[in-house]
Amino acid sequence: MFNDQIIPKATAKRLPIYYRYLNILLDENKTRVSSTELSEAIKVDSATIRRDFSYFGALGKRGYGYDVPKLINFFKKILDQDKLTNVALVGVGNLGQALLNFNFHKNSNVRISAAFDIDSKLINTVKSGVPVYSMDELEKQLQDQQIKIAIITVPEKGVQNVTDRLVKANISGILNFTPRRLSVPENVRVQSVDLTNELQTLIYFVENYGKNTDEVED
Amino acid sequence: MFNDQIIPKATAKRLPIYYRYLNILLDENKTRVSSTELSEAIKVDSATIRRDFSYFGALGKRGYGYDVPKLINFFKKILDQDKLTNVALVGVGNLGQALLNFNFHKNSNVRISAAFDIDSKLINTVKSGVPVYSMDELEKQLQDQQIKIAIITVPEKGVQNVTDRLVKANISGILNFTPRRLSVPENVRVQSVDLTNELQTLIYFVENYGKNTDEVED
Repeated sequence: MFNDQIIPKATAKRLPIYYRYLNILLDENKTRVSSTELSEAIKVDSATIRRDFSYFGALGKRGYGYDVPKLINFFKKILDQDKLTNVALVGVGNLGQALLNFNFHKNSNVRISAAFDIDSKLINTVKSGVPVYSMDELEKQLQDQQIKIAIITVPEKGVQNVTDRLVKANISGILNFTPRRLSVPENVRVQSVDLTNELQTLIYFVENYGKNTDEVED
Repeated sequence: MFNDQIIPKATAKRLPIYYRYLNILLDENKTRVSSTELSEAIKVDSATIRRDFSYFGALGKRGYGYDVPKLINFFKKILDQDKLTNVALVGVGNLGQALLNFNFHKNSNVRISAAFDIDSKLINTVKSGVPVYSMDELEKQLQDQQIKIAIITVPEKGVQNVTDRLVKANISGILNFTPRRLSVPENVRVQSVDLTNELQTLIYFVENYGKNTDEVED
């Protein structure tokens, strides 16, 4: 939708936060909101919010603010929330099972529709409503379900091998929960969530810095 | 240790990645590494690595590279890996239990030493070796165990209330797994891990951008 214009990464990262909070407002029957209210609620300064919205041509009216339903429909399209995105989960260990229970679908139109593991006790079971397949079925299921996004929660050692298989199976985006950096071709996107790293970084910042570091800030 | 010098956030965020990879090298009995080897392994360009290391006065020798054990001891101190950091977990739901099972201690000197929940079925049990206390004991346990870092995995609605109690109990760092932005005083650090946000952002980037976005890059 916005392929023809460049939106800063920092802005793109805030979109889901805007989107979720606007839905909270609508649930409370609020149909308008000022950048100042938004700012206080989501802890992003209002100048940043106005600049972010301006990239999408969404301009608040002075003394009125932003129209909440309009913004929601707008961000819904940007975030592809008007179509369901099926995602695969590779690795149904503790973290994997937590992600299955996590139910992304509750807050978004993203749904884990297939999980994969090598443990015969898990294969052909259904966990939190999601079928668990053998790793042998990975390529077939990804193709049959036309899945382009995968979450990896396998042990660190096996991750590059899994990644290579996902790439061959035309996955275009990987959410990597292992501490290993993944080797992928340019056209495949990797986003890493390294929980140990997050915790160590927090501790390091606490011991060495003054101000807040919340990820959504620039 | 480095209170008197400013290290860029992007550099600080890479420290745990450097640290973990250097330990992998040492396990393989490698005692020296070049910034180029490091670069290929952790997917950070070698110029960035050299710049990062230079902030700490760690300078590689031409034709020799970096001394692995030296770097490890060095980063160990910077990351406080030479002392154990006890962390509290508030909210022992699916994600909370996964984090207890996750065993941060395996890859770091961080350990969840106390968990808290309101569920009477969980209170006074031990999950993955960690005692689960009633929320009524939060302030007392944090003080007794001198815990300064807390992980929050409670339902979205209760999170600000929990945060306020943690702040009153002199917590200095919070790892927030809820989508809500937290209100905290300047002296308290919040780092957010919003899993739905991570997944939506990944999908958004896949649909709208070309190049890789791995968090550790600038």
